[in-house]
Formats: sequence, structure tokens, C-alpha cells
Amino acid sequence: MQIEIVAIGTELLLGLLTDTNSGHIAQKLSEAGVDCCFQTRVGDNVSRIKAALEVALSRSDAVICCGGLGPTSDDLTRNAIADLMGTELVFDRSVWEKIELRFSPNGQKPAEINKVQAMIPQGATPIAQQVGVAPGLICPMGNKVIYATPGVPAEMKEMLTDAILPDILSRKMNKETMVFKTLRTWGLPESKVAELISERIVELDRLASENTSLADSAIPPGAKTEVPTIAFLASSTEGVKVRLGVKSTDKEKALAIIAEEERIIRSLLGDTVFGVDEESMEESVAGLIRQKKLTLATAESLTGGILSARIVNVPGASEFFLGGLVSYASAIKEKFLGVSAPVVSNTAVVAMASEVRRLFGSDIGLSTSGVAGPASQEGAEPGSVYIGISLGDKAEAYYFRLRGDRERVRQVSAMHALDILRKHLLA
Amino acid sequence: MQIEIVAIGTELLLGLLTDTNSGHIAQKLSEAGVDCCFQTRVGDNVSRIKAALEVALSRSDAVICCGGLGPTSDDLTRNAIADLMGTELVFDRSVWEKIELRFSPNGQKPAEINKVQAMIPQGATPIAQQVGVAPGLICPMGNKVIYATPGVPAEMKEMLTDAILPDILSRKMNKETMVFKTLRTWGLPESKVAELISERIVELDRLASENTSLADSAIPPGAKTEVPTIAFLASSTEGVKVRLGVKSTDKEKALAIIAEEERIIRSLLGDTVFGVDEESMEESVAGLIRQKKLTLATAESLTGGILSARIVNVPGASEFFLGGLVSYASAIKEKFLGVSAPVVSNTAVVAMASEVRRLFGSDIGLSTSGVAGPASQEGAEPGSVYIGISLGDKAEAYYFRLRGDRERVRQVSAMHALDILRKHLLA
Repeated sequence: MQIEIVAIGTELLLGLLTDTNSGHIAQKLSEAGVDCCFQTRVGDNVSRIKAALEVALSRSDAVICCGGLGPTSDDLTRNAIADLMGTELVFDRSVWEKIELRFSPNGQKPAEINKVQAMIPQGATPIAQQVGVAPGLICPMGNKVIYATPGVPAEMKEMLTDAILPDILSRKMNKETMVFKTLRTWGLPESKVAELISERIVELDRLASENTSLADSAIPPGAKTEVPTIAFLASSTEGVKVRLGVKSTDKEKALAIIAEEERIIRSLLGDTVFGVDEESMEESVAGLIRQKKLTLATAESLTGGILSARIVNVPGASEFFLGGLVSYASAIKEKFLGVSAPVVSNTAVVAMASEVRRLFGSDIGLSTSGVAGPASQEGAEPGSVYIGISLGDKAEAYYFRLRGDRERVRQVSAMHALDILRKHLLA
Repeated sequence: MQIEIVAIGTELLLGLLTDTNSGHIAQKLSEAGVDCCFQTRVGDNVSRIKAALEVALSRSDAVICCGGLGPTSDDLTRNAIADLMGTELVFDRSVWEKIELRFSPNGQKPAEINKVQAMIPQGATPIAQQVGVAPGLICPMGNKVIYATPGVPAEMKEMLTDAILPDILSRKMNKETMVFKTLRTWGLPESKVAELISERIVELDRLASENTSLADSAIPPGAKTEVPTIAFLASSTEGVKVRLGVKSTDKEKALAIIAEEERIIRSLLGDTVFGVDEESMEESVAGLIRQKKLTLATAESLTGGILSARIVNVPGASEFFLGGLVSYASAIKEKFLGVSAPVVSNTAVVAMASEVRRLFGSDIGLSTSGVAGPASQEGAEPGSVYIGISLGDKAEAYYFRLRGDRERVRQVSAMHALDILRKHLLA
């Protein structure tokens, strides 16, 4: 079974909005073992939307399109689908009632222009899950089908999970599934990570080439049935990801193969692996702090709150995170933390970490100072970063020389600070 | 002139990585008046990359592809291009020297596998700007051309601006250009923003329909030459964007038309407009604080540092931002700010704002408290948010009832806090 994704919106085509929806849908499809070899983007124009949907339907079993279901004059997906189906748009009372319901909690009523959102192609079924104002649509086209969802990610996601994927799976014949696991690393460049596991990759290639007799309609290309594949993905602020994948008709077996492969790769990568899949560095750190029943406070200068904001993003952070001081101005560092010039130094971050720990009464103090740029400070170049940690009877400082712009330097500094804390907790 | 974008990487096709590059390239092309009607994504497979490039070249004048120039075995773009050109890969010493240079500042040497990155298709020219380890390539194909850049956004962007766009413009005949301006709003849903300017949209549609005699190869569809178009773009955490666009062969004229349209739309939208184009809420606020020569300190609970981190992201924030207290644990709110239960209340945020102002000696105190979820707190439901501000002889509190998950509630709270500060500064 093959499905295509058509993302609709001139904003996407012009790059004024990043298309994250196609990626999310593709990921869910691949997890469900459904192939998706083509992804298209098209603007807000009835005839071009229609053309894109026609091409997609001609080579695939179904199309998921997202975007263009809003209330304004440039929302044209329902018109294009009605044209393709050869039907008219009709007013759907059940959809309209849901739209009214969306506005009522704030004592508001829908605007007149919201009425168009209750107009659906005759013969289409509105998707029951309607998170926002726009309805999703299931539109039969002979033995094929067009699914339409709003472009708002949260609305699309709920419809995809609860209505579209179940509908697709009920139509699917081949029950092959693809299982992935991503190991997340920090601290090494992509080429070094690849070198550490290069012998294993050669071994897997050999196994795969011995095993080409089985059907191979796999995505990704090269993913041989039941032999794991390894791919690398580098991000400058989130580290290098190592993605393990395997395809099988037996999901349990695929999970077991991935688990064994994870064990092998972890033994080669050691403690540079901080998490799996969507697990963030802060979640990894939070797990360790909770295990040890410790508490944490932060003192931030160049990161200016990124470090604490990331920690607080972990649900239940209140169990271990007491708070932090964003001591941005030098006078504030001096007043609250007793730190005097040079504030971009090993001495400063050690003092910041120790003093915030004492002030907040926490078990751990973690601090950052440095120059994010664009200007230098105290003679230190942009990218000069110091991280301090105070834990047990130790207080240590780490120096980094980072490349990139202000935003990157600050984000990478927060990652280094969390990673230092992680390694201290592992030690 | 028409150009296509081909984004290469199985990770993109599978949705494991979001393709932000295509959008960035499309935006730069449209600013340069170059049409881009198709965008494709393809996985790491030589024959499929080759097929995608062939299709793209057959219907366009040039192709920009990004990704697949890394050092690992799944980086296959250079092989696909060499195949298409009917040439071999050859070792380029100048590229290799640049690769060695990238490693030397940290006293390191490239790994053996980096050598493949110095292999380029015979007849291709490496792009002079090489930000990272991977070189960009300009590959002539008869009177057409393939540009290849690495997938790392920062590397792609520098090559695009400094080498690829100038090369494209030197080949371009039609000097038509598209000018955009985006007005950023906060506080109203998309349908309300649209209603405020609905009469103007009707007027522009009328003007456009009177003016269809001129050539219309425009993107976005419907953009008639020299009559502005208006599009809406809603984001749940960054507000509704209203994008004005106009196409003309005379860039100065286009800029004047957009400036006049901006004046008209601003008069209809009033102070819900906080910025233009890429201007963030914090940059808008920073501009106003600087104008009034004031200083700021923050006290954050549920936002946990997001507010201060956003403010610090404005270059030169040290001129007005003294720092902040992330008073996450209730004990910390009491110890430093004298705030006792209920901490999720009007009284608490007023006390937090006033007290952090006094502690830090700033002109303004800004505070947040609330329940990000998933659990309730003090009987308040997730999404209950209070913002406090202390400025001049005033100290006020604002209450919001927000929808969405933990991350959204925290991000939207920070936006509301900044917007409240903005409106106080405007008053």
C-alpha cells in the first residue's frame, strides 16, 4: 500500500512557513509499514491543488493532504476536492455545531466567515475528531481516498492518529511493519561517531547482501528485511542521532532485533549516548537526578534562562528543580552570587554554581557564563563559554570554544551544561 | 526562470528530520523573483536521487539540491550527480585542504572517511564558501545547472547567499521581483484578524481583477502584478501573521506599494501588530524599553526561564535586562520574593513582579505563575496562568485560561507576558 502526502499552502511553497506536517505524517506511515515515496508541496490555488491531488491519486492508493481548510479566502482545499469528486459543497450542520462549540468557552460566537468551514464536498465524511474550528474530511474517490486535515499541527495530529491511520490500516493488505530506534549522542562530530561503529556497519551490509531473496519494497532503500540498517543524523544543537531500523512482518521479532542492535551499538558508543528517540537531554538528566533523589538550582549568565526553561519542560520537574537565578548583568552576579570580574572565567562559574547551591539550598548547583556574541566581553571572543558545577564536595569548571551565532552558542552551552551534569550523575 | 528544489535524505522522507532547507531556499528564490512551483523530497538512494534530479531538470532551468554530501555511506548525492553528468568522481585537493583546516583549530585531523567529501564530479566546481566539512558544488548540465549544498542549514545558507543566488541572477532574463512584508499580530484568532481587514481584501480583489492584462506567471497564484495580495498564517504560539506581497519589475515601486499597503492594514489592525517580518515579540519589546531607557527584571514560575531566555536572545539585551529569578519551587518564591500560597493567583504575580523589581533595582518587574500541566495545582486547572507587571507606580495582574499541552501553555504564557509589557510601554 502506498500513500502520498500533499502539503497545501503558498506559505509553504514560498518558505514563509516550515512544513513540519509532511514529516510527521510520513513518520507515522512508516511506523505503520505504509510506504510513502513522494511528498509534494503546492500553493493556495484551486487548479494546482486539483492537479497535485490528481497526480498523487494516479500513482498511489490514497492521499493525505493538509492545509487550506481555514476560514479565509485563500483556503481552497475543500473546493479543489469537490471539483475532483465532481460534486458540490454542502452545508454540514454537525460540523457547524462543533465550530460554535469551539468559540463558546470564551463566551464568543464564530465570525460569519467561519460558515465556509462547515461547507464540505457532498459524499465526504467529516472526521469525528475536530480539535479546532476546521473539520477534517474523508473523501472517497472510487476505490481510493483523499484524507484532508487542517494545517495546524495539533489538529492534524489528532485526526491522523484517531481517524486516518485506523482507516488506512483497515484497507491495508500487507502487514509488514518498520521499527526504528534512535540513539541520541552528544559530544562527538558525526564522522567520529561513524568511525566508532564502522565495523558493525560493514558487518550489517554483509548480512543484508546475503539476504536479498526476500521481497524488497522497503523504505528506506537498502533496508533489507530483518537485517537492521543504521543511519546518521547530525544537528548542531542537539547532537548526532544514530537511527537503527528494521523491517519485518512480525513486529515482536522486529522489536527484538532492534533491542539487540541497540545493545551492540551502545557498547561501541559508551556514555556519549544520552537518550533514545524523542528523549531530550533534560529528560535524561531528570531521570538520573530523580533516581538519586537530588535537587538542583541553576545560575545562568549567557544562557539567560535556556537551561532552567529546558529543565522545567520536563513534566514533574518540581520534584527536583528548585529554581534558578538569571544573573545577566554583572552587578546582579556580584550582588546575589558574590562574583566579581572577570565574570567570563573558570573562577566565576565555580563561584556561581557554589553560591546558587547555597542560596537555594539545593544538592547541585549548575552555572553558565560566557560570550554569546556578536561583541566580545572582557577581551574574551564570542563563543568562549564556561560551565560550572557544584555537587557533593566538588566544584569544577569546564571551558568550551564554540562556533556559530548567538542563538547557537547559547543553545549548545545549555546542552554542554546538561551533559556535564549528566556525566557527574553517572560517575 | 524556474528552479526546483530537491531535498535529499531518507530522514526527511520518513519525517525523522524536518526539511527546513527547502523553505529557506524557496523564500530566497521568491525574493529574487525566481519561480519555484515544485519541491520534492527523496531518500538516500543513488537511482532515486538521480531520477528526482532528472525529472526536475526536465521541467526547470536549474535544480538546487541539498543533503547527502556528508562523510558516511548514506551520503550519495555526489555519486548521483556524477552518474547524471556521465563523469567520474575525482579527488579535489583544494577541497581536502579546506577540510583539514576545519579540524585544525581543535588540534584534530579529519577522519579517513572524510576523504570521500573531497571527491567531486569531474567538471563540477566546488563552491568557494565552505562553512563546514562538506563542499558545495556547481554542476553544469548543458545549458542547465545543478547546485548541490550540504543539508546542514547554516552551511547551505551561506552557500546559497554568497554563491548560488548570484550565479542564478547572472543567468536570469526576467528581472521581475516579488516583495513581501509580514505584519505580526498577537491576541486575536485568525478569523477576527481577517474580519478586521475583510473590506480591504475585497477592494484588492477588485483591483486585481481589473488588472489581469499583464503577464501572470506569478507565485503566489492570484498575485496580480503591482496589486498587493494578503495572506494569513496562524501559529498557536507566535500569533497570526498577515503577509502582504506584491510583484513588479521595478523593485523600488514594489517597496512603495507595500509600504502604503502596510499603512492601510496597520490602521485597521491597531496595536495588535507587534512587529514585521522576522521581528520577534521580544525584539519589539526590546526596542520600546531601549527607547524609554528603562531596565527590566523577571520572576518566573511556570515559564521557568523561557521569558528571560527570549529577552536575552535579543543582541545587546545587557543594556536593559538585569536578570531574573526562576522561582520554581514554592519555598523559593517565599524565601526570595516573600510570596506565600496561593502561588497561582493575582496576588502572587503582583508580589513577584514588585519584589523582583525591588531586589534587582530595575524599573520594571514582570512575572508569571500558573499551571502548565499535566497535573492541577492548588485546585487550579492546567492552563490557568497569571501574569504580573510592576512599572512606575502601577502593579497589575492579568489572568488567562490557555488550551494545549505543557509546552504550548508555557510558550503562550511568555508571549502574553511580553505583550502585556509591550502594551504598557506603548501606553
